[in-house]
Amino acid sequence: MTDTGLLRVELQCVLCGAAHRPTVDASVCPRHEGLTGILDVIAPGDGTRSGAGSDPLDRYRARLPLPPGPRRLPSGYLTATPLLPAPRLAADLGVAELLVKDESRNPTGSLKDRASALAVELAAHAGFTDVACASTGNAASSLAGACAAVGLTARIFVPASTPVGKLAQLAAFGARVMLVRGSYDDAYDLCEEAARAFGWYDRNCAVNPYLMEGKKTCGLEIADQLGDAGADWVSVAVGDGCTVAALGKGLAEMRLPRSPRLLAVQPAGAAPIARAWERGSEDIVPVPARTVADSVSVGAPRNAVKALRAVRASGGAFLTVTDDEILDAARMLGTLAGVFAEPGAAAGIAGVRRARAEGLIGPGDRVVHVVTGSGLKTATSVGAAFPEVAPTLDAVRAVVGLG
Amino acid sequence: MTDTGLLRVELQCVLCGAAHRPTVDASVCPRHEGLTGILDVIAPGDGTRSGAGSDPLDRYRARLPLPPGPRRLPSGYLTATPLLPAPRLAADLGVAELLVKDESRNPTGSLKDRASALAVELAAHAGFTDVACASTGNAASSLAGACAAVGLTARIFVPASTPVGKLAQLAAFGARVMLVRGSYDDAYDLCEEAARAFGWYDRNCAVNPYLMEGKKTCGLEIADQLGDAGADWVSVAVGDGCTVAALGKGLAEMRLPRSPRLLAVQPAGAAPIARAWERGSEDIVPVPARTVADSVSVGAPRNAVKALRAVRASGGAFLTVTDDEILDAARMLGTLAGVFAEPGAAAGIAGVRRARAEGLIGPGDRVVHVVTGSGLKTATSVGAAFPEVAPTLDAVRAVVGLG
Ligand SMILES: Cc1ncc(COP(=O)(O)O)c(C=O)c1O
Ligand SMILES: Cc1ncc(COP(=O)(O)O)c(C=O)c1O
Ligand SMILES: [Zn+2]
Ligand SMILES: [Zn+2]
Repeated sequence: MTDTGLLRVELQCVLCGAAHRPTVDASVCPRHEGLTGILDVIAPGDGTRSGAGSDPLDRYRARLPLPPGPRRLPSGYLTATPLLPAPRLAADLGVAELLVKDESRNPTGSLKDRASALAVELAAHAGFTDVACASTGNAASSLAGACAAVGLTARIFVPASTPVGKLAQLAAFGARVMLVRGSYDDAYDLCEEAARAFGWYDRNCAVNPYLMEGKKTCGLEIADQLGDAGADWVSVAVGDGCTVAALGKGLAEMRLPRSPRLLAVQPAGAAPIARAWERGSEDIVPVPARTVADSVSVGAPRNAVKALRAVRASGGAFLTVTDDEILDAARMLGTLAGVFAEPGAAAGIAGVRRARAEGLIGPGDRVVHVVTGSGLKTATSVGAAFPEVAPTLDAVRAVVGLG
Repeated sequence: MTDTGLLRVELQCVLCGAAHRPTVDASVCPRHEGLTGILDVIAPGDGTRSGAGSDPLDRYRARLPLPPGPRRLPSGYLTATPLLPAPRLAADLGVAELLVKDESRNPTGSLKDRASALAVELAAHAGFTDVACASTGNAASSLAGACAAVGLTARIFVPASTPVGKLAQLAAFGARVMLVRGSYDDAYDLCEEAARAFGWYDRNCAVNPYLMEGKKTCGLEIADQLGDAGADWVSVAVGDGCTVAALGKGLAEMRLPRSPRLLAVQPAGAAPIARAWERGSEDIVPVPARTVADSVSVGAPRNAVKALRAVRASGGAFLTVTDDEILDAARMLGTLAGVFAEPGAAAGIAGVRRARAEGLIGPGDRVVHVVTGSGLKTATSVGAAFPEVAPTLDAVRAVVGLG
């Protein structure tokens, strides 16, 4: 084990509470079966105020497991993403305020960039040359981009069905890619095996406890942007569960007077964590994942315990939505808020609509929705068929229908 | 003509110098043929210092033709984009420093968002319900996104050959799109005709003098980020010529002690402005545009005069690059800098390589390259064919070749 001895954090097993040494390549607690003994980072800066600047790795440095010394990625590689009021979408959803946290502004177009940036800092510091990651696509492209920026080799395991946009990013960044014949869950297990066999740094959020701290910066930023006014809800889609847990962690650390509850949304066809929530259990029953939201098509989630606890601690809830509701939500985000989200990044809006209908969210509520990834990543063909016209005003007239 | 009488700017014809009233829908100087008498905005804030914040419409408000009163787009719709050191790419190009201005971080993934945001503010203020735009794709998707954010209707004219990613954005934002059978130049003329016929606000950079002020904020930001250290060159691809002229304008307004020269790069197959530069003339001979860089595939450029003058005033140069050089430059940006650029947005890097080979750029130079649009917008299929593997370690071993 590489031990820099310099990460000023503590690691604690979520199952048995045992403390672990904060080595750069810390993994799961060995007392439990498989990958269930996931470690949680206890950051030193908890409760302290933020630093300055827009780059979250600078701004929140005091509460992140960053190695000492100069950064590898340039400052500004990550930037604060905006929290944008969307009054037309709020009206359509029947809530007082709807704010979109637009994570598609990140360097490779998804929230995952926050975790990959941290992974690359840690891997480079510890002298690794290769970093491995299994992914439905976004974690992969974010790792590939960050590796290219600093000169590391990205080792990527994705399902062969990964959307074209995400594969194109991997190609552009020169990543070493395996298209795994199987599901994301198959790709995940294979990646773990290969990382161990070949000595690659492991950028998988369940096994690598530090990654969640990168994603946590999104929650810290939302709290910073909301300020004391706070909000009632933060909605986000859930796959492995790492993202919603990280948002909850970041929000909780900021201790807002009106701290939002987490609305954790899963597609009905890939909802093992939501099902456990309904049963009041932390035991996950894996499912064969089937949903249009490729990025959260996860049948055997690896961070369910952290997700369930974060949602419970926030006073929030899990719920499920159909693929039709997800596609409709993406349309609403685009046409009413001007934000182009991939299906997985729109699912939370479908969740808000459902929670509003069920009375869980009230008409006076202030709701934040996190757009976790760009719609450009999954754009394959054009949904709406546009009219083709000859270059004459008469042709335009016929289409516009103004006589 | 709608006259708000409140835009605190002056308009001056680039050909005859005549002054024009700053109405919201000001167009070209009528003393000249066609669209040649383009107006230039003389902003009041010239030479003053910047305001605070990241949103360029807030930060540079004093020198922009923004209408009075509250903004329509939320603050943070535009954000500052980062200027990122890319040492590995610098080494490959043989220059001391290479900084990437990453405009793919903009709300719809291109620099054009800066102009569209301004257009939407002006159109909404003046009471227009529809805004029209001809485009190779990026101006269109940026207008569609900004219109959706505020509830205006975007009227879009694009060539039928526009890449899938850009069309998918138009569909997502609910724009009214005409796929014009013909070139961008045909789409442009048709859009002008239709905007006049139907009373739509005109978001075309040549005819609408204010649009360039939006793009100018990119130059202002670069100067802000460079600070007194300045730089030797700023490279960018040129189509209509508006972008390079706007960069030059913004940089000049900031009066850096070491203000960069403009490297204006055109694809050899669509280089009418570069040809005029070589002849030392301001007269453009239109060409049939043919290039892999769809966003700068412009045969009859509409802002050539401003572009030529801005490059000359900066002490810079025009040059041309081949399609192969452009594709190679995109690969280098992705693999050595971790930035995924569309071909048009990579052409400037090909220009830097050529300028370095010709001795125009020296080995000690500090060079800024503007990535004007995201590679996700033109991603159709995957360049590199990735290996497909069964989910077994042996299959991975065979691919990785480590025994
Ligand atoms: C766009 C998008 N949204 C949401 C998620 C869910 O994150 P997690 O798997 O950590 O629950 C992902 C994960 O890949 C994603 O890519
Ligand atoms: C990505 C990109 N780069 C460069 C340009 C060139 O801008 P201009 O046509 O103003 O010269 C464009 C214009 O569409 C563009 O979309
Ligand atoms: Zn344990
Ligand atoms: Zn004139």
